[in-house]
Amino acid sequence: MMTITKTVPELERALARCLAGIKPADEAVMEEARQRQAQLAKPPGSLGKLEDISIRLAGMTGRVHNKMDRCRIIVLCADNGVVAEGVACAPQSVTLAQTLNLTRGKTGASCLAKHFGDEVVVVDMGVNAVIRDPKVLDRKIAMGTRDLYLEPAMTRQQALQAILVGIELADQAAADHVTAVGVGEMGIGNTTTSSAVLCALTGAAVADVTGRGGGVNDEGFRRKKQVIAEALEKHRPNAADPVDVLQKVGGFDLCAMCGVFLGCAKNRVPVVIDGFISVVAALCAARLCGAARDYFFASHESYEIGYQLAEKELGLEPWLVLGMRLGEGSGCTVAFRVMDAACAVINEMATFAEGAIDDGYLDEIRANDSFTVDREAP
Amino acid sequence: MMTITKTVPELERALARCLAGIKPADEAVMEEARQRQAQLAKPPGSLGKLEDISIRLAGMTGRVHNKMDRCRIIVLCADNGVVAEGVACAPQSVTLAQTLNLTRGKTGASCLAKHFGDEVVVVDMGVNAVIRDPKVLDRKIAMGTRDLYLEPAMTRQQALQAILVGIELADQAAADHVTAVGVGEMGIGNTTTSSAVLCALTGAAVADVTGRGGGVNDEGFRRKKQVIAEALEKHRPNAADPVDVLQKVGGFDLCAMCGVFLGCAKNRVPVVIDGFISVVAALCAARLCGAARDYFFASHESYEIGYQLAEKELGLEPWLVLGMRLGEGSGCTVAFRVMDAACAVINEMATFAEGAIDDGYLDEIRANDSFTVDREAP
Repeated sequence: MMTITKTVPELERALARCLAGIKPADEAVMEEARQRQAQLAKPPGSLGKLEDISIRLAGMTGRVHNKMDRCRIIVLCADNGVVAEGVACAPQSVTLAQTLNLTRGKTGASCLAKHFGDEVVVVDMGVNAVIRDPKVLDRKIAMGTRDLYLEPAMTRQQALQAILVGIELADQAAADHVTAVGVGEMGIGNTTTSSAVLCALTGAAVADVTGRGGGVNDEGFRRKKQVIAEALEKHRPNAADPVDVLQKVGGFDLCAMCGVFLGCAKNRVPVVIDGFISVVAALCAARLCGAARDYFFASHESYEIGYQLAEKELGLEPWLVLGMRLGEGSGCTVAFRVMDAACAVINEMATFAEGAIDDGYLDEIRANDSFTVDREAP
Repeated sequence: MMTITKTVPELERALARCLAGIKPADEAVMEEARQRQAQLAKPPGSLGKLEDISIRLAGMTGRVHNKMDRCRIIVLCADNGVVAEGVACAPQSVTLAQTLNLTRGKTGASCLAKHFGDEVVVVDMGVNAVIRDPKVLDRKIAMGTRDLYLEPAMTRQQALQAILVGIELADQAAADHVTAVGVGEMGIGNTTTSSAVLCALTGAAVADVTGRGGGVNDEGFRRKKQVIAEALEKHRPNAADPVDVLQKVGGFDLCAMCGVFLGCAKNRVPVVIDGFISVVAALCAARLCGAARDYFFASHESYEIGYQLAEKELGLEPWLVLGMRLGEGSGCTVAFRVMDAACAVINEMATFAEGAIDDGYLDEIRANDSFTVDREAP
């Protein structure tokens, strides 16, 4: 467990320094990439989002040519006190079990990452157990949050500290020359916190952004919506202050994810949103600093009902429609391949000039008159 | 150029033999795969289409565990006489140039394939030029089709022969132990033929399934729709006989693609639809033999307007929404990665039994009472 040594004002200043360090994407380099795309031997725009992605990547990194040769999924793990209210279908022990399994390449996201050669960094932000495993990074803020139905999930100091941990993780990714970061999570109860945060930030109705998460039954689903509604009523989080929202109805995973998004933006590292929890954290980051959005990619359209609203708020469109709702960063591995494809096109495809057959072959054919529309009958 | 040595009845019999060899997917093995998915440590269905894909793959190959270690894109190249009507924005010479560039890893699809290690087989089905290139497989039926605005695009003998070439290409893929085939094309004018074939098969209005292809201007777009409508009126292709439709308003590329789809189904090899031309060829195949559909995967949602109708007819849903409309099989490379991800999950993810932390760790934590919901305050 971490001991928080800094005061709230000190933590606020550290966050402000990060936010001040976030610059918009480089429009000049994006224009260079656009020019390059226009020269490639294909109908303009015919590679759709593969073109857009390459242009956005250029704006993020400041280079027209990028490679996706070191992708890292950062998985933030934490427990949520609100599970005491019966809002989740799985027992809280699953958070611990899957946190450990994530390090073993055996969960959905980690077996995908292993298969494709992506790195997985598993971070204990607040799992409700003492974890003794060198493969799990200990950044535990507490043994899970408090029950947000009864009291604010955490203190402001804890929320700020958790966000700063996320920024630190992004700084480390940049130092390691990671080419893209994906943001995943593990934490029973975190669709409840995510729906609550999304409601608080957007004013959406609870029913419009609350789904069944891992698959809670009718009774649990009803209770989940009631808990969120009453908690929002009770704590009245301030929509203009995302830290307040995260503190009152969020979780340590959401806070740290928000920090990873901010830290990647500061470091100009492309960062991939996974599913519902991830997109809510990204929205918190974008509310803290609008320019951070320039560094976000949506990956897949989560099956969770609130996902689309959050995506719309961010102005992003997902590339994959796979009906996934596992979390853990499981959608990021496939998204990295889409980004890899986008890089391959802008790096390796011939321009119109290069694509012209330049060995006299076409001229010869034309000279022989076989290359005309008025050809021999078939 | 091929010399067609068989008579129409002989060719019809060869096609009928292929159709008779197509068996539905193996429901028993699909059920085995479903059982396996239910045991994996995740909320049921939470990996969405990655689960569905693994189950469908099992039904196709007859094995629960599959690997995508040899993927091949077959690109069918041919010219279309209808370009004389001014329906395309690019000159016909682009078909030849891109056919040759495809072998050099420099076009959109081939640079993607090269990047990801997929094979590309480039087949000359009827490019309007004599191609002397050992990397292009010569299966030329003629120097392009006739102008379908004036007369049927080809003879029935040619249509059947082109379909049989596609079946032969699929047979070869199976003999080479290819694990998935993707179907691409190159042929200026082939969105015109594809829209015409789709209209003939479904009775759809020309305007509802005709787009701008590579990007034809307003005048060309108007002309394209007029040419299709008048050709359908003149030749009255028989919707109940896809070979008749392909012969009258199709192209050699469409015929051969249809054959690849049929041949893959016969050989139980998963086959991936790319864009608009590809999905129309798949629909022809499905009309010839409904069971063939069991072996088809949709990859990405093409930007071309007719795509969605054809997908709906086939009962398939694409995985990728990338706004692509290049053709060549460019969408298949990314789709192969999605299929690879689906295989990784069913092959490598832990079951609930395997995922349980079995080293006494959890028991110890439980015994120490730190693993409860009623924990210490944060």
